[in-house]
Amino acid sequence: MLALRLIERKRDGGRIEPGEWRALANAYAAGHIPDYQMAAFLMACYLRGLDRGETHALTHAMLWSGDILDLNYLERPRIDKHSTGGVGDKVSIVLAPLVSSLGVAVPMMSGRGLGHTGGTLDKLESIPGFDTHLSLEQAKRLVESLNCVLIGQTAEIAPADRKMYALRDATGTVESIPLIAASIMSKKLAEGLTGLVLDVKQGSGAFIPDLGVQLAQTMIELGADYGCPVVALLTAMDRPLGRACGNALEIEESILALKGEGPPDLMNVTYALGAEMLVLGNVAKDRDEARRLMEVAIGTGKAAEHFQKIIEAQGGNPAVVDDPAILPQAAEVELFPAPRRGFVARVEPRAIGKGIIALGGGRTTMEDRLDLSVGFVITARPGDWVEQGEPLATIFAKDRAGIEGGRLTLRNAIQIADEANPPLPLISHRVSSAGIETLAP
Amino acid sequence: MLALRLIERKRDGGRIEPGEWRALANAYAAGHIPDYQMAAFLMACYLRGLDRGETHALTHAMLWSGDILDLNYLERPRIDKHSTGGVGDKVSIVLAPLVSSLGVAVPMMSGRGLGHTGGTLDKLESIPGFDTHLSLEQAKRLVESLNCVLIGQTAEIAPADRKMYALRDATGTVESIPLIAASIMSKKLAEGLTGLVLDVKQGSGAFIPDLGVQLAQTMIELGADYGCPVVALLTAMDRPLGRACGNALEIEESILALKGEGPPDLMNVTYALGAEMLVLGNVAKDRDEARRLMEVAIGTGKAAEHFQKIIEAQGGNPAVVDDPAILPQAAEVELFPAPRRGFVARVEPRAIGKGIIALGGGRTTMEDRLDLSVGFVITARPGDWVEQGEPLATIFAKDRAGIEGGRLTLRNAIQIADEANPPLPLISHRVSSAGIETLAP
Repeated sequence: MLALRLIERKRDGGRIEPGEWRALANAYAAGHIPDYQMAAFLMACYLRGLDRGETHALTHAMLWSGDILDLNYLERPRIDKHSTGGVGDKVSIVLAPLVSSLGVAVPMMSGRGLGHTGGTLDKLESIPGFDTHLSLEQAKRLVESLNCVLIGQTAEIAPADRKMYALRDATGTVESIPLIAASIMSKKLAEGLTGLVLDVKQGSGAFIPDLGVQLAQTMIELGADYGCPVVALLTAMDRPLGRACGNALEIEESILALKGEGPPDLMNVTYALGAEMLVLGNVAKDRDEARRLMEVAIGTGKAAEHFQKIIEAQGGNPAVVDDPAILPQAAEVELFPAPRRGFVARVEPRAIGKGIIALGGGRTTMEDRLDLSVGFVITARPGDWVEQGEPLATIFAKDRAGIEGGRLTLRNAIQIADEANPPLPLISHRVSSAGIETLAP
Repeated sequence: MLALRLIERKRDGGRIEPGEWRALANAYAAGHIPDYQMAAFLMACYLRGLDRGETHALTHAMLWSGDILDLNYLERPRIDKHSTGGVGDKVSIVLAPLVSSLGVAVPMMSGRGLGHTGGTLDKLESIPGFDTHLSLEQAKRLVESLNCVLIGQTAEIAPADRKMYALRDATGTVESIPLIAASIMSKKLAEGLTGLVLDVKQGSGAFIPDLGVQLAQTMIELGADYGCPVVALLTAMDRPLGRACGNALEIEESILALKGEGPPDLMNVTYALGAEMLVLGNVAKDRDEARRLMEVAIGTGKAAEHFQKIIEAQGGNPAVVDDPAILPQAAEVELFPAPRRGFVARVEPRAIGKGIIALGGGRTTMEDRLDLSVGFVITARPGDWVEQGEPLATIFAKDRAGIEGGRLTLRNAIQIADEANPPLPLISHRVSSAGIETLAP
């Protein structure tokens, strides 16, 4: 009867009290509330909204539905980065070794790809042997010794959120700011963080377009309630980030980035987010100093070496950092030439993401198995002038049919025209407890 | 993917097209759409509403998700009555034999009690042997021979509605006018009707208070789309209808009513609804003539004899009409005296309905088994002057604990005060395609 009463109250625009959120989250996690009742409740939440107190109470309820990674004894700053998800977004893979090599602990729990956006876990698993399924105890030991661990949301962490998120995905109740904020924060707070940097993607390829500032502000408020400062950057996702799109391809590009050879957009977003992490962690006094520290860590090879140690500690083959050919290789590789001369007007990330699914490198349901070798490396950037026949991208597929499908994807995704509007600024805004700062016009 | 797309569209205030309603209803009835997706969709429908075209399309989709009772070959008017449900509402049991004895076919499909409102099927099953589980073929033969059949919604009839209704009951999505109207009309149209009379209950004991006129108008519009005229009467449910509340007790009162000895409120509502049925069925030229026909059928014993034939045809013991002692009898019977002198200010039907559940005569889930013998006979009417100690009601229970519980119910439900406001008019409005007519001030 509890569930029905709460459904009816939220449906009618009423408020759910903290004790009721707790009871609901625990009963749902324990299987005492059927999915259909939770689905109706979540749709009522989606359409009626949650106020600040309710969002806080839901976060709290989901956080305490499971265990937390207690790292207080470490007496080190513990900062994570969360991205709302995009195409070609391999920033986590560069950032975690880079920032943790500089003295900030990064206990990073990531997700798998779903729909057109990729997932850090899938990418990492393209490194032979890399194990993302560690227990909380194993994760603790890696954070102690290496300042870093790269794992998935374990069964112990926020089980109510885990179950609720899967249901939201199937019931059209994902794109709700309070539900998203509570879901992210319950998991991130369970990592025992002292600070969080948020990468909110803007533009057509963003998982949730156009809700950026509001989401950032909600998460900043939630973080403040727990003494966990949150800083958000709004970054462009109207085109893929970097050149590589596809699991193993993105690992290769991440390794290049850790060696200072990453594409400029990827490096800039990585440095900007990393600077926030280092300042939040009191390792650098300001963002300029932080950036210099990161450039040195990359220039000296310290960051790449640190990644090697993390890979080794998680069972992966560390040789991958020196020899990316160890990664799964696609059987068929083909250049994609420009069909005409003109300006690159658009590289549509959503179409690229769906193209990766079509190649077998992404999933539409959590049960899909992935071909980690496939994808695209897209060298053409919006605004570039190209001649007909000039290569715009490379297609990586498991067979000729894949190459054909990849060509179709790129023909749709890459638009060439006589003029091109400027793309979104790479990093447009910074949102913190101090307010919104415009970083680019 | 269909379900998710439709959930998102309705969530965002969009429109579902007729072909999509059909696909949704069929896929759900066939088990291809999980309950949790349908629950989210129904909540979105509840909060966003359906327009007239969507309500029509949903009705059509649910109607054609199953078989229909094709009675066109009969060339007789086929009229049913539907009530939105209340406490002590045994009108169907009087009306079906009465009206069908006068030449109108009444293929009546009823429901079971749920929550505080009773159900016609449960009441009928208190007649020893009475079988409400007939196939459509058996039902047809009874309508052919006796003009009447009294059954439940068979598995063949509107299976999508059947499944959806159970889900709505568990997910807080019942009280939506388009969903209610589509649910009722899909079942009623499947009876192959040429007309429908609707009894919309008003007041605290109504299943859905305060939505009467709007519901009536929606159903009139839906009926018009199918050439099935609908007439609605708005009747009082701020107190129980008649005196008997409880399954076997209501059968006994219905038999008395068919013999002309029913309480005045029950007789008036029965005559008013019956008159609409006889006029819709062209058996009477107006409501006055219809009423005279019904009075004759009752006065001559024709109506009671017809009920006897129906009972016999459905496997029940027809002797019950002459000897109601055949009905299940409660072990404990006790009068309930007035706790003080004064006016009867209120007989709260919701409290009575819940008291019947407490006695074991109603259900909170569809799995509950009922004690058909228990209930109340309440002789006190709102506005009556009573002396302390004067009997207001009789309690029928299976044991002494039941009598105690029944006393508690009646102490709460029957309020005696120094003054009494007038109750709602018994029949307040008539709604038809011609508009709303006020029948009582």
